[in-house]
Amino acid sequence: MVRKIDHIAIVVKDADAALKVYSEMFGFKVVEEMEGPAGEFKAVLVAAGDIRLEFLQPLKPGGSFARFLEERGGGLHHVSFTTDDIAGELKSLKARGKQLINEEPITLPTARIAFIHPGAAENVLVELVQRGK
Amino acid sequence: MVRKIDHIAIVVKDADAALKVYSEMFGFKVVEEMEGPAGEFKAVLVAAGDIRLEFLQPLKPGGSFARFLEERGGGLHHVSFTTDDIAGELKSLKARGKQLINEEPITLPTARIAFIHPGAAENVLVELVQRGK
Repeated sequence: MVRKIDHIAIVVKDADAALKVYSEMFGFKVVEEMEGPAGEFKAVLVAAGDIRLEFLQPLKPGGSFARFLEERGGGLHHVSFTTDDIAGELKSLKARGKQLINEEPITLPTARIAFIHPGAAENVLVELVQRGK
Repeated sequence: MVRKIDHIAIVVKDADAALKVYSEMFGFKVVEEMEGPAGEFKAVLVAAGDIRLEFLQPLKPGGSFARFLEERGGGLHHVSFTTDDIAGELKSLKARGKQLINEEPITLPTARIAFIHPGAAENVLVELVQRGK
């Protein structure tokens, strides 16, 4: 089961500039910052009320966020749904023939995540996230 | 102030097919259906847990959703934030020089809505919505 929208991810050229824009418009504040594997990107999670957005800033050329930025000028990249059982959710989706990018969860310091293929979800990249260590 | 994510809007070729996909994957159910002005599009609001998605299906060629479908094959179109004072929010954004698509709210049967220009929001189309008649 998915419970709520964990966050909406947005590819940006400059996460600090994006924070300034969303802070001025709606009072968004930084919740968490992390760097992707091999320094490929910076991810800044920001919140206003119950809304959480993730700014994804490519730090090197050639990665998928860098390509997205180049091709589209950035913008909405993926949506993330909270689940309490990511392993079970993936197993169930796989058993029903749904196309997954990650068949097993990826373990981050404070969450486990996995992506469903846009081809299985109306051209939307959907991330599942289970928060907690 | 914005409070929460009202919904995430997705342009699709066929809203019924999209419902079937998201229902099978995550148990989404229909909350509300409406047709756009001049029968240009169909909008189907669906929910699972606290997650609400809006499937936007163009019904005629030439409109912005039809172009989006043609150019991108559909996918994430806009995000909608709930506010308790849409008129005040728009006034405040305008006073601070933010680029708006709608300077005044558009009144729908069960909500008032307005769009902020993607140029003011990191290439993201942001909708504000105040629910209630």
